[in-house]
Amino acid sequence: MDIAVVGLGLIGASFAKGIKQHTNNKVYGFDINNETLTKAKRDGTIDDIVLMNNLSDFDMVIVALYPVNTIEVCTDALKTMKRGSTLVDLCGIKGSIVDKIEPLALKAEVDYIGTHPMAGRELWGYDAAVNDLFKGASFIITKTENTNMEKVKILRNLAEEMLFKESVITTPKEHDKIIAFTSQLAHVVSNAYVKSPSLLEEKGFSAGSFLDLTRVAKLNEYMWSELFVMNKEPLLFEVDNIIKELEKYREALENDDIHYMEELLKEGRILKEKSNLAHSKKC
Amino acid sequence: MDIAVVGLGLIGASFAKGIKQHTNNKVYGFDINNETLTKAKRDGTIDDIVLMNNLSDFDMVIVALYPVNTIEVCTDALKTMKRGSTLVDLCGIKGSIVDKIEPLALKAEVDYIGTHPMAGRELWGYDAAVNDLFKGASFIITKTENTNMEKVKILRNLAEEMLFKESVITTPKEHDKIIAFTSQLAHVVSNAYVKSPSLLEEKGFSAGSFLDLTRVAKLNEYMWSELFVMNKEPLLFEVDNIIKELEKYREALENDDIHYMEELLKEGRILKEKSNLAHSKKC
Repeated sequence: MDIAVVGLGLIGASFAKGIKQHTNNKVYGFDINNETLTKAKRDGTIDDIVLMNNLSDFDMVIVALYPVNTIEVCTDALKTMKRGSTLVDLCGIKGSIVDKIEPLALKAEVDYIGTHPMAGRELWGYDAAVNDLFKGASFIITKTENTNMEKVKILRNLAEEMLFKESVITTPKEHDKIIAFTSQLAHVVSNAYVKSPSLLEEKGFSAGSFLDLTRVAKLNEYMWSELFVMNKEPLLFEVDNIIKELEKYREALENDDIHYMEELLKEGRILKEKSNLAHSKKC
Repeated sequence: MDIAVVGLGLIGASFAKGIKQHTNNKVYGFDINNETLTKAKRDGTIDDIVLMNNLSDFDMVIVALYPVNTIEVCTDALKTMKRGSTLVDLCGIKGSIVDKIEPLALKAEVDYIGTHPMAGRELWGYDAAVNDLFKGASFIITKTENTNMEKVKILRNLAEEMLFKESVITTPKEHDKIIAFTSQLAHVVSNAYVKSPSLLEEKGFSAGSFLDLTRVAKLNEYMWSELFVMNKEPLLFEVDNIIKELEKYREALENDDIHYMEELLKEGRILKEKSNLAHSKKC
């Protein structure tokens, strides 16, 4: 296939590198930053530069941008993509993207598939991209009643060649609900965690638990703000839920109620053990 | 030295193993579980079994028990320890322990030092103990106006031989304040995190951030409840603080206020970067 990747940040450029390294497809790229484009061509991340005003030569166009730009660029891309080609986006939320893009793709007779490769780093931009960012990761593919399952198959094969651990098929709504819990809430909580006056006094005292809890506090605030706000309802549910749960531990402490504290901790331990078990069964 | 370790759980038995493996001291041990004691002697974790009713032969007695038992056992131990010997406890909170034990130790003319080896596992008990649990970890030593600094020196040397990364000297109060933030809050938040109805739906969707945030949710509820309740004020401060901070993200979401969300996330990112910098400067 001739594949165009639009947006050569951490995710887009790592995706392009993954395709180049592990598959026989040709990869073309576009980025609004000319320096990035020149670098990407020079270092072989892409075979050549794409002209965005004509995407009619490509079998697959992959958009790797922030949510708002994803919608804009997909909308534009559909104007010149050829009938029967495939449009894929890699954005971390799916409902609001799929709702906007799918009707336009249907009209353009292009097969659109919303996906989410579950990997990242605490760095971003072209220079943070690496060949094997997706090695061992999950590739989430969303489907609707309009999804062309032949194209899903092609995408799954591509993901497999790129060394993703697995492709998981779900609906955009289900994706957004789960991602609010497993990824977005983790970023909110981690980012909130470091906001204690105790933070800069902790030298020498930080066990692994502190480092684990705060690892993803270092994030790209522009991208994550868009992702959060465009996934308002599910994320609000999770934030409300953890606040409600934290208030129980607060109450146990306030009342010196060691038995209630034990109950709360036991409940969490058992849930975590169940979750570990579910994971290990999958592996 | 002849050293007695009382309590051969994860921490006590790992400490005994560390001393045996890396130093020339003799290690004796006690545990209320007879099977554990037999195992510990048979597999060489300890040189021999201690009789708790007479500790007069030991240069150093190390107590590795839960908070309430630590106070009870230290109180008893001081009745038979010889003058000029050293009593050490490894409990994860220090203020309430030191306040109780220090006056008794002064009276018995025993040098008491409250410490906290900053390492752990998501497993506990004798069978979870390993030789190098403390390799690369921080060893926190608390001192008061009564602390015998010669004994602190001996303890630091022991920690160094056992491959601790460093010994950090602080006050019991300062220890408890920082530990509330870096360790106890991490366990509370992680334990609360898993309590979402979304937990068991997340198969295949869990990126590293979820696994990091929930790693320490699996904890020993009896030990941690004691630790939390005996460190009420500092931990309550931290739990209140993170609830207050989480409510700000909640507000930004509720109001679709992307700029406020960006501000909140940026503030957290910068704090985390400063914290990383402080760590890397130390290393």
